[in-house]
Amino acid sequence: MNNKLRVAIVGYGNIGRYALQAVEAAPDMELAGVIRRKGSREKESPKGLAGITVVGTINELEAVDVAIVATPTRLAPRITKEILALGINTVDSYDIHGKLYDVKKELHAVAQENGSVAIISAGWDPGTDSILRAMLEFMAPKGITDTNFGPGMSMGHTVAVKGIEGVKDALSVTMPLGSGVHRRMVYVELEQGADFGTIKKTILQDPYFVNDETHVIEVPDVEKLIDMGHGVLMERKGVSGATQNQLFKYEMRINNPALTSQVMVAAARATMKQSAGAYTMIEIPVIDFLYGEREEIIRRLV
Amino acid sequence: MNNKLRVAIVGYGNIGRYALQAVEAAPDMELAGVIRRKGSREKESPKGLAGITVVGTINELEAVDVAIVATPTRLAPRITKEILALGINTVDSYDIHGKLYDVKKELHAVAQENGSVAIISAGWDPGTDSILRAMLEFMAPKGITDTNFGPGMSMGHTVAVKGIEGVKDALSVTMPLGSGVHRRMVYVELEQGADFGTIKKTILQDPYFVNDETHVIEVPDVEKLIDMGHGVLMERKGVSGATQNQLFKYEMRINNPALTSQVMVAAARATMKQSAGAYTMIEIPVIDFLYGEREEIIRRLV
Repeated sequence: MNNKLRVAIVGYGNIGRYALQAVEAAPDMELAGVIRRKGSREKESPKGLAGITVVGTINELEAVDVAIVATPTRLAPRITKEILALGINTVDSYDIHGKLYDVKKELHAVAQENGSVAIISAGWDPGTDSILRAMLEFMAPKGITDTNFGPGMSMGHTVAVKGIEGVKDALSVTMPLGSGVHRRMVYVELEQGADFGTIKKTILQDPYFVNDETHVIEVPDVEKLIDMGHGVLMERKGVSGATQNQLFKYEMRINNPALTSQVMVAAARATMKQSAGAYTMIEIPVIDFLYGEREEIIRRLV
Repeated sequence: MNNKLRVAIVGYGNIGRYALQAVEAAPDMELAGVIRRKGSREKESPKGLAGITVVGTINELEAVDVAIVATPTRLAPRITKEILALGINTVDSYDIHGKLYDVKKELHAVAQENGSVAIISAGWDPGTDSILRAMLEFMAPKGITDTNFGPGMSMGHTVAVKGIEGVKDALSVTMPLGSGVHRRMVYVELEQGADFGTIKKTILQDPYFVNDETHVIEVPDVEKLIDMGHGVLMERKGVSGATQNQLFKYEMRINNPALTSQVMVAAARATMKQSAGAYTMIEIPVIDFLYGEREEIIRRLV
């Protein structure tokens, strides 16, 4: 008998690749298959997909419990809704902070109608950073939390720039300036004949970039600049009860797509323990993301 | 109309004092009263209790929604059970890691029978540190987490020593030696005629101390040594999927009873959102500990 969770991965970009490794490392999961667009499937198959079932739609896979939606963020809500409508659970890492509540609401309705569960915005920010921000706020309800990102490659921002017409390759690096203020350094490699001025203007007007100091730089070869390391420094100074100057600091230095996809895989596990609906990570008990017996986890970690 | 959560505080030691401040600072709560033993009530009333309802049993208070059990840890399970049996929710900060699952099981039965909710071991360790340990484990499932405490005064250890016959006053300070290894420095002020050798032996055999290097020192006046600051440095180095060397660090420098009681007050709020039973903090969504509207919290913190 096999009680393993059957997981499908939608998309095989950076997140998809690392998600595959995380599913293979999870003792309670097995890969149902990878879903790729026709265009991608017709190209030469990447090494990492050797021996893996690759299909065009999730219907071609057998008995999928949960789908990890590893597409560009802007495609995620539509694809997620289609999968939820089939009664299959989903995890995405939708990362546009200002819109995620509205996406959650939309997905919630579809999930409830079809008896499925969505965990949205699962990654490290939004995601585990959100859990930490929420926790620090109830530990010291008055005060300020600063989340400083980087230096490091932002996946969402990079993908957004790559989607612009005339951009052959791109890299968006986030530089922390302190107090939660950031600079975005965007490196673009252009298609033959593309106009740098037009592309730069498009980037500067994109919701991903409008709120930060952004520099767009044309380079001949983006590939040579890519390092997927990233980091966060979160700080809160606040008041517990009537006691001032409570100090908290959280720092991480990580491979970005490896961590994002690992969190998504943990969220895939957590979908199985929720009632139908759509959830952000702060709405789910942390124990639900962990592999193992409840009693053993509590005895070991609490 | 008044929809405020009515909170009772059981005990008026360090945690009780700070819990009172945290309840007063919470916009959604009001104090029902403080419960003290007869012996304590007969002494001169502390300044902080001026104008506060002080009673001997919770039955003397009106319409209590939730009780914060701020007694010494070893009395907490019994008192908590009595309150749960009245159909009133409870929060304790039971801090003996090796026994808390068994306490939870006992309380769970009582709570389910009486339609009440207990959150046990609510504080910073066990408590918010537990949430963090659980989160870091699903972010990098393979690896080692070290929790380094201090330097700082341990409330649980101090109270345990104070409970020993012949001890007039005590202070247990935790010193971090790195890699999660600690030294306990125990300062004791003795009652007239008490035997230091016997007391030292009792301390060294106490489950609170048996696992750590412990030094017991006799001093003439413990009061002069008391500083309630404390700290934690938690570190994890682990593997996400197949990616090694993911680095995480969490540090806090805080007033110990102020933070413990603030977390207990947040947990008091969270009891109102659970179904009957007993829970540790990792079994509860972090959003439930926060004051405010769900949508507003998600839009602001996720």
